[in-house]
Amino acid sequence: MAIPPPAETAGSTAPDGRSYPIPGAGAVAKTLENLKAKAQSWRKRGAQVVAVQGLGFVGTAMAAVVADARTPAGEPAFHVIGTDLATPSGYWKVAKIQEGDSPFPSPDPDLDHLIARAVRETGNLDATVSEEVYGWADVIVVDVPLDVEDRTICEAAAIQLDLAPFEAAIRAIGRHMRADALVFVETTVPMGTTRQTVLPLLQEAFRQRGLPGQPLVAHAYERVMPGPRYVDSIRRFWRSFAGLDEASAARARTFLEAITDTEHFPARELADTTASEMAKLLENSYRAMNIAFIHEWTLAAEELGINLFEVVDSIRVRKGTHDNMRYPGFGVGGYCLTKDSLLAQWSLTRRFHSTHQLRTTLEALRINYEMPRHTLALLRQLLGDLRGRVVTVCGLSYLAEVPDTRNTPTELLVDELLAEGAEVLLHDPVTRRWPERPDIPVETDLKACLQRSDGVVLAIPHGAYTSLTVEHLLSMLKPDAKLVDAQNILDDVKAGALHARGHRLLGVGKGHWRTKGYER
Amino acid sequence: MAIPPPAETAGSTAPDGRSYPIPGAGAVAKTLENLKAKAQSWRKRGAQVVAVQGLGFVGTAMAAVVADARTPAGEPAFHVIGTDLATPSGYWKVAKIQEGDSPFPSPDPDLDHLIARAVRETGNLDATVSEEVYGWADVIVVDVPLDVEDRTICEAAAIQLDLAPFEAAIRAIGRHMRADALVFVETTVPMGTTRQTVLPLLQEAFRQRGLPGQPLVAHAYERVMPGPRYVDSIRRFWRSFAGLDEASAARARTFLEAITDTEHFPARELADTTASEMAKLLENSYRAMNIAFIHEWTLAAEELGINLFEVVDSIRVRKGTHDNMRYPGFGVGGYCLTKDSLLAQWSLTRRFHSTHQLRTTLEALRINYEMPRHTLALLRQLLGDLRGRVVTVCGLSYLAEVPDTRNTPTELLVDELLAEGAEVLLHDPVTRRWPERPDIPVETDLKACLQRSDGVVLAIPHGAYTSLTVEHLLSMLKPDAKLVDAQNILDDVKAGALHARGHRLLGVGKGHWRTKGYER
Repeated sequence: MAIPPPAETAGSTAPDGRSYPIPGAGAVAKTLENLKAKAQSWRKRGAQVVAVQGLGFVGTAMAAVVADARTPAGEPAFHVIGTDLATPSGYWKVAKIQEGDSPFPSPDPDLDHLIARAVRETGNLDATVSEEVYGWADVIVVDVPLDVEDRTICEAAAIQLDLAPFEAAIRAIGRHMRADALVFVETTVPMGTTRQTVLPLLQEAFRQRGLPGQPLVAHAYERVMPGPRYVDSIRRFWRSFAGLDEASAARARTFLEAITDTEHFPARELADTTASEMAKLLENSYRAMNIAFIHEWTLAAEELGINLFEVVDSIRVRKGTHDNMRYPGFGVGGYCLTKDSLLAQWSLTRRFHSTHQLRTTLEALRINYEMPRHTLALLRQLLGDLRGRVVTVCGLSYLAEVPDTRNTPTELLVDELLAEGAEVLLHDPVTRRWPERPDIPVETDLKACLQRSDGVVLAIPHGAYTSLTVEHLLSMLKPDAKLVDAQNILDDVKAGALHARGHRLLGVGKGHWRTKGYER
Repeated sequence: MAIPPPAETAGSTAPDGRSYPIPGAGAVAKTLENLKAKAQSWRKRGAQVVAVQGLGFVGTAMAAVVADARTPAGEPAFHVIGTDLATPSGYWKVAKIQEGDSPFPSPDPDLDHLIARAVRETGNLDATVSEEVYGWADVIVVDVPLDVEDRTICEAAAIQLDLAPFEAAIRAIGRHMRADALVFVETTVPMGTTRQTVLPLLQEAFRQRGLPGQPLVAHAYERVMPGPRYVDSIRRFWRSFAGLDEASAARARTFLEAITDTEHFPARELADTTASEMAKLLENSYRAMNIAFIHEWTLAAEELGINLFEVVDSIRVRKGTHDNMRYPGFGVGGYCLTKDSLLAQWSLTRRFHSTHQLRTTLEALRINYEMPRHTLALLRQLLGDLRGRVVTVCGLSYLAEVPDTRNTPTELLVDELLAEGAEVLLHDPVTRRWPERPDIPVETDLKACLQRSDGVVLAIPHGAYTSLTVEHLLSMLKPDAKLVDAQNILDDVKAGALHARGHRLLGVGKGHWRTKGYER
């Protein structure tokens, strides 16, 4: 895949609003020359060259961690070159890293520190749109997305995969990689992808380019967790991996030992790449299943007047068997939990021609996707007809404090509210824009929103919401505003005080608020 | 419910084969007089009287633990009187305890010790069929069964509950209890049972007997785990509880503090008995769900040639989120996991008139019930038509080393094998009889079984099976016997050695055995 030369005037706009002109072919070529010289210089100093393909949430953090790795002698172990596409949606990430900034604001200050230090002080982290850099690399880390066409389609035969971007990325590597380079696939992929997609594409490239031997390929999935321990979720966490052959596996282990704390978090080799691919999908499907499970019981608890948070707390004392039970909530977002089960089913059906269906696993995904409709139903119980009513939705990002809007459950709620004729004010304290939905503005002045609102949905437990006092809330709310707490943001004392001052409230999983009459 | 006076000649046969004549009315009355004098004597020494109603797996262990409780001064805190029915299926438990023996053999030697000591040395544990003893008790612990009619019916509207024995038991208490006694319900019950069934039955009894005030009732479910830590699972484990009013809750807490180690395992009071009832059902449904979930992935792993045990191990390193992931297996048995979700749905539908369905929760129960059919399918793949073939099923009890056959998944496998015309030899090293299925003999000579068998199913991981060496197995097996390992009983080394010696093998969750050609 040749990167199409964009017009000098085309711009790439980052989520913070800054626009970066996409460089023309001439500028790219000149930057590449400088980069090549730099890589050669690092190599002379004993560092290996690592290309990280795809500067999304994972690739960025991975690039930062690899750049921060040191040899036993304390020297930088790698010169890292991140790559992304010269497109409006891709280039700004390259530009940000070139400036020494993280493309993604993170509650983990380590991410900013690592990138700033590597770019501005150590000088061993670069970024480019030139695929030629794969030709210099000892290790090429694949962190490009592999997504389904539509996450709401949960029937086995109907799941559509968008494999093209992933295949294009592997072909770009194949056009340039050295025969002895390790392709280190971190992307979450359907079972069989490393052996049945990556390997044949690289073998074909080897054949065309007359390279000797077999490509070295490993699958080593990441367990990156957005949040305050973002960097540690790569560096100080367990990895599983597998290689297509012994040489690939050995190279992958060496690389993992260089970049992660394998002394305290040993890397575990699985029997083959298909097992490694399934492990990632199984692990995220398990989490999704356990979330869906508790939602079924949430609806039951509300009908029976039970405070399910209290009940779950009482069960979670059983360490090792029940301490990961989930709490009632608003919905599930993010890149992984909302799709990984679909990748698994797609693989079974399309790649392995199996009739087996992961039925409850897929049903869990459907339950999780639909979950925000329950919050909407509670709001309807309080407000009645939503037409013409003003509703503030508190929380856009799908995790507290994390400015990540991908597949946020807020989207379904907002769309349903709009479809019912409500005026929606969408507030978030950590997210200024909604890249996937530029049609919906993000409000920053909570008071201005609440002063106008008939209904308030507390959707995401940002600290800006959980720390609100009753007095502060009362000073902002309309006198008869109704509230739905979808994420245990208000404790019982606050809820009681708000009800005593004339507000009606309902809460997801808080059946006891009904018993107390808070909805009346 | 008056206990019908049985004929002197009627017998009650224990699982060990011993038969006990059920005493006539005269003998019962005489025993009761002696017991009354004993209780009065214990009361004079400062002990409270505790009646434990129902001497099943829970009631027996509970009686033993309560009898073993000591005051701060080291004196026995309670005189315990266990009760059960004067029926052929009930009386032998009373008789066993009267002799100082546990009715149930247990891998936990503490159970035998506690009962023997309390009956033979301390003299503060008795058992009787006389419901009159509830009239002397300070605390009446309810451990009678409450079951569904048919555990295989998982549709909300079709679930049938057999409430009659439970209601009869509560009425028996109501006929005799003191107005100031605490009724301490440990039975796992549908949400709402304590308030909507127990309370009205006792209130009616109070009215008829002219007793003052309201009955004191608490729900405090048990978390008994059959196995080597049977006694500790009562004494040194967390309890949740709730009372119908503050006085009931306070009395329940005092009782729990006297019998369990609340210093290290604090008792947790929930807001009401309905929450406590739901907590138990939710906690067991969670476990059942997580078992069903992994079965879906077991079938996928086998198709793809993946060793799912290895994969699950690699995921379980994630403490706190994934370390309770279950392994592939044969099926689910026991009294609780196979029915508790049905109690919850029955409560929603029948008692609270809800239309809400715990859909994936019930689907999980169905998956778990059907699970042994997969083992059967693997056996068919190896043996073809099963008509006339001899098959040894290794394992009757549903848990390793635990002689408990209730709802064992082995039953479905045996019935299906018989239906297909196979000759079934059922072996178990810790269970001598199958009380629920007296038509099926339990074999004790493994060699005699294997020497005749075309097929062998390793169903339950008893130590007697896991410790078998390849040489020992080979010395017993027919030369071309086929094996299905349903519970990870054979490791890969043993499986490889057996295959090398001409045996064909398949394993639940062991897709890699196919890749290696062990089924050929």
